[in-house]
Amino acid sequence: MPYVNIRIAGSLTREQKTKIAEEITDTLERVAQKPKPYTYISFDEIPHENWAIGGNLLVKKE
Amino acid sequence: MPYVNIRIAGSLTREQKTKIAEEITDTLERVAQKPKPYTYISFDEIPHENWAIGGNLLVKKE
Amino acid sequence: MPYVNIRIAGSLTREQKTKIAEEITDTLERVAQKPKPYTYISFDEIPHENWAIGGNLLVKKE
Amino acid sequence: MPYVNIRIAGSLTREQKTKIAEEITDTLERVAQKPKPYTYISFDEIPHENWAIGGNLLVKKE
Amino acid sequence: MPYVNIRIAGSLTREQKTKIAEEITDTLERVAQKPKPYTYISFDEIPHENWAIGGNLLVKKE
Amino acid sequence: MPYVNIRIAGSLTREQKTKIAEEITDTLERVAQKPKPYTYISFDEIPHENWAIGGNLLVKKE
Repeated sequence: MPYVNIRIAGSLTREQKTKIAEEITDTLERVAQKPKPYTYISFDEIPHENWAIGGNLLVKKE
Repeated sequence: MPYVNIRIAGSLTREQKTKIAEEITDTLERVAQKPKPYTYISFDEIPHENWAIGGNLLVKKE
Repeated sequence: MPYVNIRIAGSLTREQKTKIAEEITDTLERVAQKPKPYTYISFDEIPHENWAIGGNLLVKKE
Repeated sequence: MPYVNIRIAGSLTREQKTKIAEEITDTLERVAQKPKPYTYISFDEIPHENWAIGGNLLVKKE
Repeated sequence: MPYVNIRIAGSLTREQKTKIAEEITDTLERVAQKPKPYTYISFDEIPHENWAIGGNLLVKKE
Repeated sequence: MPYVNIRIAGSLTREQKTKIAEEITDTLERVAQKPKPYTYISFDEIPHENWAIGGNLLVKKE
């Protein structure tokens, strides 16, 4: 542990995921004393039509 | 918040997802006073072979 | 299946949870043809200090 | 990885959790070649009034 | 209930998923008295580039 | 969106949660262009006896 799950609509580049994983792992070590090797992070890239805000999918209605 | 995650085996049409997102967002506003713009909903459409009930995947065994 | 997870900051009354569970289960049957007995719903009532929006916990900073 | 999340209504004894964690970790090593030290398991013990099946909370309605 | 979510980096064969689902469902019945038909299991097969351990994605950096 | 869920064994101080939420929200804005107000973060503080690594709960066996 810790286990961090990041869910976003759309996709990220590998470069973005690399940077985000590095920074979050660093934050958890620096702020919460969690040794880096124990931190697992998973990214879920959700299609826009599978995500709704305020009752509207993040795509145009048909 | 709220954050609602809906996991189903198989897939839904965009029309079904639209309707489900609208109704759940409405339910949370009407019953729990959660303003609509704050409600996030994500759908995870899981392949049948990745879901088991009673120890059996939702596909025929090979 | 389906499995629905509802995460909110703060708590709900039992009456609210009853109503929300009934309505969502009904929505999934009516819109997506999921038989009611198969729908599982879990509620996670998250303490306000364990939820952040825009980088701010939903409690006052100390 | 792997990360396994077990959600049940009600609670388990520590002895039950110990046994379940041992067996699942063993299963993942034996069947999927996942080395034991990499397997994380978390248990979420959900109050009965926060879990619904078929639209009914797992407590009596008031 | 119970609801079990298994997240792994990479993929599993259908045969592995079948075996894992059988064994976990059996464990929960034998150890925790959960009747088999109530146990739902979902598998999330996460691309290696969407999983990080120790701040490094499970792919080579570019 | 994004929705970030942080699961740790044990607990964090409010100060730690404040700092972690600020930094992750900042990371997602800076690296992935996600506007801060859209980022939701929830913390799940899991009892040590509900978390296992390598088949062992994070408490001494009885």
